[in-house]
Amino acid sequence: MPTTVMDMLRAYPADLSGVDRDKLARAIEECVTCTQTCTACADACLAEKMIADMLKCIRTDLDCADMCGTTSAVLTRQTAYDVNVTRPVVQACIAACKACADECEQHAHMEHCRICAEVCRRCEQACNDLLGSLG
Amino acid sequence: MPTTVMDMLRAYPADLSGVDRDKLARAIEECVTCTQTCTACADACLAEKMIADMLKCIRTDLDCADMCGTTSAVLTRQTAYDVNVTRPVVQACIAACKACADECEQHAHMEHCRICAEVCRRCEQACNDLLGSLG
Amino acid sequence: MPTTVMDMLRAYPADLSGVDRDKLARAIEECVTCTQTCTACADACLAEKMIADMLKCIRTDLDCADMCGTTSAVLTRQTAYDVNVTRPVVQACIAACKACADECEQHAHMEHCRICAEVCRRCEQACNDLLGSLG
Amino acid sequence: MPTTVMDMLRAYPADLSGVDRDKLARAIEECVTCTQTCTACADACLAEKMIADMLKCIRTDLDCADMCGTTSAVLTRQTAYDVNVTRPVVQACIAACKACADECEQHAHMEHCRICAEVCRRCEQACNDLLGSLG
Repeated sequence: MPTTVMDMLRAYPADLSGVDRDKLARAIEECVTCTQTCTACADACLAEKMIADMLKCIRTDLDCADMCGTTSAVLTRQTAYDVNVTRPVVQACIAACKACADECEQHAHMEHCRICAEVCRRCEQACNDLLGSLG
Repeated sequence: MPTTVMDMLRAYPADLSGVDRDKLARAIEECVTCTQTCTACADACLAEKMIADMLKCIRTDLDCADMCGTTSAVLTRQTAYDVNVTRPVVQACIAACKACADECEQHAHMEHCRICAEVCRRCEQACNDLLGSLG
Repeated sequence: MPTTVMDMLRAYPADLSGVDRDKLARAIEECVTCTQTCTACADACLAEKMIADMLKCIRTDLDCADMCGTTSAVLTRQTAYDVNVTRPVVQACIAACKACADECEQHAHMEHCRICAEVCRRCEQACNDLLGSLG
Repeated sequence: MPTTVMDMLRAYPADLSGVDRDKLARAIEECVTCTQTCTACADACLAEKMIADMLKCIRTDLDCADMCGTTSAVLTRQTAYDVNVTRPVVQACIAACKACADECEQHAHMEHCRICAEVCRRCEQACNDLLGSLG
């Protein structure tokens, strides 16, 4: 995927928010990827023959997609940074990613759940790494 | 606004998530309204002559709109309810609403900020009321 | 639902976009309601015993929720109005609402689909009324 | 950015929607990237000293971010594909990307607008390529 996350951080015309730039770019990229992957996994689960077993997976996919989309936007914004908003948003994203990874790992014999679990786990880790560096 | 939040909760064909139904409907309604109002306030701030004074307000409006949109969706879903996701999502929503209300109250001589502050404060309260009743 | 759509339009500090104000407020309100209702209907369909019959309904619900959410935001913004963006966005919203209403009407014996079909049809109509008045 | 768009298309457990798979993956990837880049450009414009000149750019960035986010989700879903929804959604995305690229190109001496214009133009092209192959 053609990424411009770091390019756009470098092009920001004022001081960045003070957050570790590499960890920030990584967290944004993982949130962006996780939004799309969870949307795809929810849809793939809908197409499974054993759909009755996939209800929890679909629900956690939808929540995780929404929460990662919001987190990528909040983290992208540098103007008037407020750690009192960023921190709980990142914490909520970590919780949504953990729940989705836990659920998808139980269906890892399905390729879409296997991939989605990996993506959610990476996003959870990237958000945790960022959280540790927030002021 | 024609509301169907409670009608849709009543039409849910399985057991609801165990959350207090009135508090849940109220929180969803306030999140939905807050999403639209913060989007409008960010746009109205852009049209102010003193726009340089409105940057923090625009940013908190955008964050609050995104976070309230996600929260309304997460709260709307009843299937496979998971308090470990719902709780941090609601907490992040409270933080975003509080930050936006605090900022808009400082521009309450502008009608759009006065209204937006009230809406954010109501949403913060509704989410806090709901949070206290989460299992 | 506590509505502030018209209040926020009145509080806009510059000239409005020239669109009929009543039709605009109505379309925004219906889009906002439709976003939440379609999210709820998708979730209720997931909880139906006959879920295999609900796949198309879930998919159109999710598309309609996304498209109505975007349309409500685009219509809310008054600054630097561009009919060349607004018109195709409203047209896409009409298409999503029509598809979702058509599908939900086939399941109108389920209360959530009956309500959702009505809400989608109202939103389709409000968007059509607005479209006719766009410059 | 770690992309899983094509991996998730391949992992879909039923027949794909019949759309050209390479063009579909490309359009999804560009929409995903464009959502984040436009969000970043709106924020960077807010931090410009000449902010009064950036109002139209901020507005088109916000519209384009919303519309590309919705389009990436609609295109990602394969279950119960309906060209009567997909086509107008992609057309609205093309309009939003074109408006944003046109505007950002006028500020191409600002690095964030230069990058954003390129990303929007690529997304417009990828959506046009996909549109020509829709059934």
